[in-house]
Amino acid sequence: MIIVLKPEATKNDADEILSRISSVGLKPLYMPGTERTVLGALGDERVLETLHLDNHPLVERVTPILTLYKLVSREVHRQDTVVSIGSVPFGGKHFGVIAGPCAIENREQMLTSADAVKSGGGHCLRGGAYKPRSSPYSFQGLGLEGLELLKEASEKTGLATVTEVLEVSDVEHVEQFADAFQIGARNMQNYRLLTAVGRSNKPVLLKRGMAAKVEELLLAAEYIVSEGNPNVILCERGIRTFETATRNSLDLNVVPYLKQHTHLPVIVDPSHGTGLRELVRPMAKAAVACGADGLIIEVHNNPKEALSDGKQSLYPDEFKSLMNELLPFIAAVGKKV
Amino acid sequence: MIIVLKPEATKNDADEILSRISSVGLKPLYMPGTERTVLGALGDERVLETLHLDNHPLVERVTPILTLYKLVSREVHRQDTVVSIGSVPFGGKHFGVIAGPCAIENREQMLTSADAVKSGGGHCLRGGAYKPRSSPYSFQGLGLEGLELLKEASEKTGLATVTEVLEVSDVEHVEQFADAFQIGARNMQNYRLLTAVGRSNKPVLLKRGMAAKVEELLLAAEYIVSEGNPNVILCERGIRTFETATRNSLDLNVVPYLKQHTHLPVIVDPSHGTGLRELVRPMAKAAVACGADGLIIEVHNNPKEALSDGKQSLYPDEFKSLMNELLPFIAAVGKKV
Amino acid sequence: MIIVLKPEATKNDADEILSRISSVGLKPLYMPGTERTVLGALGDERVLETLHLDNHPLVERVTPILTLYKLVSREVHRQDTVVSIGSVPFGGKHFGVIAGPCAIENREQMLTSADAVKSGGGHCLRGGAYKPRSSPYSFQGLGLEGLELLKEASEKTGLATVTEVLEVSDVEHVEQFADAFQIGARNMQNYRLLTAVGRSNKPVLLKRGMAAKVEELLLAAEYIVSEGNPNVILCERGIRTFETATRNSLDLNVVPYLKQHTHLPVIVDPSHGTGLRELVRPMAKAAVACGADGLIIEVHNNPKEALSDGKQSLYPDEFKSLMNELLPFIAAVGKKV
Amino acid sequence: MIIVLKPEATKNDADEILSRISSVGLKPLYMPGTERTVLGALGDERVLETLHLDNHPLVERVTPILTLYKLVSREVHRQDTVVSIGSVPFGGKHFGVIAGPCAIENREQMLTSADAVKSGGGHCLRGGAYKPRSSPYSFQGLGLEGLELLKEASEKTGLATVTEVLEVSDVEHVEQFADAFQIGARNMQNYRLLTAVGRSNKPVLLKRGMAAKVEELLLAAEYIVSEGNPNVILCERGIRTFETATRNSLDLNVVPYLKQHTHLPVIVDPSHGTGLRELVRPMAKAAVACGADGLIIEVHNNPKEALSDGKQSLYPDEFKSLMNELLPFIAAVGKKV
Repeated sequence: MIIVLKPEATKNDADEILSRISSVGLKPLYMPGTERTVLGALGDERVLETLHLDNHPLVERVTPILTLYKLVSREVHRQDTVVSIGSVPFGGKHFGVIAGPCAIENREQMLTSADAVKSGGGHCLRGGAYKPRSSPYSFQGLGLEGLELLKEASEKTGLATVTEVLEVSDVEHVEQFADAFQIGARNMQNYRLLTAVGRSNKPVLLKRGMAAKVEELLLAAEYIVSEGNPNVILCERGIRTFETATRNSLDLNVVPYLKQHTHLPVIVDPSHGTGLRELVRPMAKAAVACGADGLIIEVHNNPKEALSDGKQSLYPDEFKSLMNELLPFIAAVGKKV
Repeated sequence: MIIVLKPEATKNDADEILSRISSVGLKPLYMPGTERTVLGALGDERVLETLHLDNHPLVERVTPILTLYKLVSREVHRQDTVVSIGSVPFGGKHFGVIAGPCAIENREQMLTSADAVKSGGGHCLRGGAYKPRSSPYSFQGLGLEGLELLKEASEKTGLATVTEVLEVSDVEHVEQFADAFQIGARNMQNYRLLTAVGRSNKPVLLKRGMAAKVEELLLAAEYIVSEGNPNVILCERGIRTFETATRNSLDLNVVPYLKQHTHLPVIVDPSHGTGLRELVRPMAKAAVACGADGLIIEVHNNPKEALSDGKQSLYPDEFKSLMNELLPFIAAVGKKV
Repeated sequence: MIIVLKPEATKNDADEILSRISSVGLKPLYMPGTERTVLGALGDERVLETLHLDNHPLVERVTPILTLYKLVSREVHRQDTVVSIGSVPFGGKHFGVIAGPCAIENREQMLTSADAVKSGGGHCLRGGAYKPRSSPYSFQGLGLEGLELLKEASEKTGLATVTEVLEVSDVEHVEQFADAFQIGARNMQNYRLLTAVGRSNKPVLLKRGMAAKVEELLLAAEYIVSEGNPNVILCERGIRTFETATRNSLDLNVVPYLKQHTHLPVIVDPSHGTGLRELVRPMAKAAVACGADGLIIEVHNNPKEALSDGKQSLYPDEFKSLMNELLPFIAAVGKKV
Repeated sequence: MIIVLKPEATKNDADEILSRISSVGLKPLYMPGTERTVLGALGDERVLETLHLDNHPLVERVTPILTLYKLVSREVHRQDTVVSIGSVPFGGKHFGVIAGPCAIENREQMLTSADAVKSGGGHCLRGGAYKPRSSPYSFQGLGLEGLELLKEASEKTGLATVTEVLEVSDVEHVEQFADAFQIGARNMQNYRLLTAVGRSNKPVLLKRGMAAKVEELLLAAEYIVSEGNPNVILCERGIRTFETATRNSLDLNVVPYLKQHTHLPVIVDPSHGTGLRELVRPMAKAAVACGADGLIIEVHNNPKEALSDGKQSLYPDEFKSLMNELLPFIAAVGKKV
């Protein structure tokens, strides 16, 4: 850790801080400069967090040398982690596609959409039973009934399932009915929920928050893994920027960045990442090309009538075409479905 | 609602959509143009949401005329709502200051900080028992023990209290120990939590999410009010932008914007809004000047040793000075403490 | 154009505005609603801009139906425009790669880098003679001497060249020495410069500003084309967001968006778009996959010693590998180099 | 400067870099850690920029200790600089208000608006002769004729004037007709233009770019001052964020931040900063309250008919009221008009 002092700090102030550094077992370093004095702390600086040096009124700035996440870091664990949803592997050489409707609306819609995913070539099924909606007057999901429909669709098609949990109390229900938890963008920093799924052993699909830095996404994953559940799949789903032509700005830069900094699998959601059906297919290909380990895509049997996110849902035939179009890209990056 | 069709839409497509508009009781309008056909729907368009017209593959764009929030709108309820925390009123002509440490750390720190708030002239006391922290390795709060210390500090000083709830299950505990709920920025779109505090009758301090548009903040408030709790205080606390010199960018524009669009009181958090102790005082004054109904400020008996957010916490004497400095600004906007 | 009036507007106010709409030859439309009165104007609404209806104190909001750009719109001109730099075509089925150093530093660096581009398989050569630098104490480019070196490199390798103009007075010099103008991100809204290159007939590589919406990029292109120069290539190079792990956030969403809305070719700059050498190769592939018509990539004979942007410049052998790795992606999107 | 090496860097790599640090006269520092080796360079690190250490493939990150700007820094020059436009001082205890129409449209509009500014109590007059407009089909300003009208208005009212320069060639014209140059947000990083006004001795009103970090604004000012013109007034005018309810997000945080980091005067533009007439007055007061040295406000004799920015222009009587309302705020911060 590097500590830059304010110009008015004296040698005494520096000494006080240096002795606090020593007191936690790190090696202190004194570097007086012409305009600023700089202090260093050598060793595992994570213990320094207890010192809260950036609170000090004479400290201008504290720059950590190491990342705050450790368990999810590729430096600690160099090989790719492969996480399976049901029997579908994500990570390493394995590429998988999760598809299905945004929300579970009724039996027919769910079963027909699931058939479309299966016959289109998808590997896992998604569908939301609990829906976070910005307006209290919008459809909020079917709850437990939705989970039952999801399970029925899974049994009929043989597809493993992923569905969102909104709260700690949802975890036990979803655990019974589905093969993986989804933590949505709005809950990426809901630490109670991260802790709760961290105590399960089912895989967790962790979506990046719409204003979350990539380091914060990794720290959210660290929460889950530090509770004992190593089965985390990260998901880029678009960030909020000034651009209004698209619903979000899909930040594909973070895909190769994450692959270099963590051993966890990384997938991409081009449906939320664009918000526009017409952009889903090209951006799905781009995600493959930059190294994603999979995709999660909204497919609906009848997007025109969908109760949520119809504007970004693919028609069944569009999904089928996309699955074929993806093949040469998946091959070109050396992966297999 | 205005519906712009894609250039390839035919008269038949328009007719199909117009008949759907009629079917929900609105008056349809057909406006063929040289390059685009535009459709209109006159009446209370909120019923249109059930039609999901923006999902239609031949619809280019849907522009609502009315806002989605209603109960919190000043159009529906023109007079200022005054919300009281304990006996301290916020809104209308009433200006109030909530102050205290970010986290409740231990008995001495809490009681000393509460004394500093009281003797400095603050009106309510804040302090977090449940702390959302981006790293799993940071201090997470004292929980119930913290709530008890907060209550003790309240009894000793006579200050009413506000504290954060992170999850539905926290609501009943906080209800016993504190005078108001705080919904933090990370939970502004935690709809289960909004619903839960909406079923209480204690006031709710609702903080804007760090990437939330002002319309989304108003919809979050609508969730609470639509459950039956009209006692909502909105709080601007800074948004996430590209600027890195400050922790957040305090978006004071939304203070007068909100005052014009809603009857609810609006307060400002210059501590999180800047992240830097040196900027808290000038920005607190700016908040008063643009019409805020109150402030929430981090004050700590010893910021240098604070377990969280010490860098942005005021020293007791700084807080006392600020309270005096605020007086002419509060008078100049025609409010009283 | 759709005009939403404020609630306090009377029938008289509406009539006044409707008569202004009639006065410019458009068909006015009156749509009184329960909470708001909405007005419409049917016809080529671009003439409405002269009315400045959004200035009116009783107008709440004006929503245009049509885009402000016309010449660059795919609605007006449906086939892909192919723009050639020297003899290298961009657009339609043609994919091209422009590469070279950020800045022209000296003769040896320029010639060696140009050789690396040529032998690596690049199609055009880039290199800056005029450099916009955020600090006045940084290297500002060699100016005319740089242009001469660029020309020499072009003659030796046979590669056509692109170089940046910073000001109107640079246009005539660059016109003599290079095959295409580059308008950098900082100058996307330098309308004098857009007008000046619009009066040339050499192709223009127009980079998106770092906070420019895609509609603003298209309007900037409209400036150039409306002056008579149809040879514009658009370039996505990353936008400024809250994310700090990468220099910019490469907004690939706009590639397919632009391809759908304009007939102009669209290329991508993964060097500035990421700022990190390690991310350039995966993001170059992603750009191809989502439909880009080309790439512009920084390649330096010795990035370690580069005077600018070395951190994001490829080594010659990395560039050569990338050019090979791109081939299956280019084939998969149905393009050819 | 602190240099963090990648984990794979060897002692030899460190030695190579350390010897480069020595070679430019700085004191090198070697700090091996458990997971990373960190190097330091003590002395005036600005010379290090010539080493471009961040280009090095084994360097993970370079953290400067000092700012890149020097002449504009308050550390170098502790007293407030007072800059006068005509005889109106800005900075120190002096508060000034610049007002007038966005664009100079015709003689009557300019003279009437100037009268409104004068009789309303404004201190300087603004008006644009050269207008940067995002669409090529919008009004682009009257050019030289506009400058003549501005001068006439100045002579009639006795108000000193400020007007925008778009390009180096505008500088000599504006120098003849006006009392101060304005560099608009789009040109904050037009370094040729900064250099040109830096060679004049007339004051420069430098507006922050809409995606410019505060450090970049200070570096832009450094360009001007380093050319010999110390008369720079900085202006916050709103940044581009995800919020769409307002045209920009006025980032008042930077006002006290700038006042702490530079000796130059800082003013605020609440017209562009909000884009909405209804928000101009409260935000003008907020600007005063947080320490601004002045304001620049759009006032038009008839905003309803204004050719640009009418939606954010005050009516003459609104301006007059505002000037009165500002007085207690100006007094409360210890300034005088």
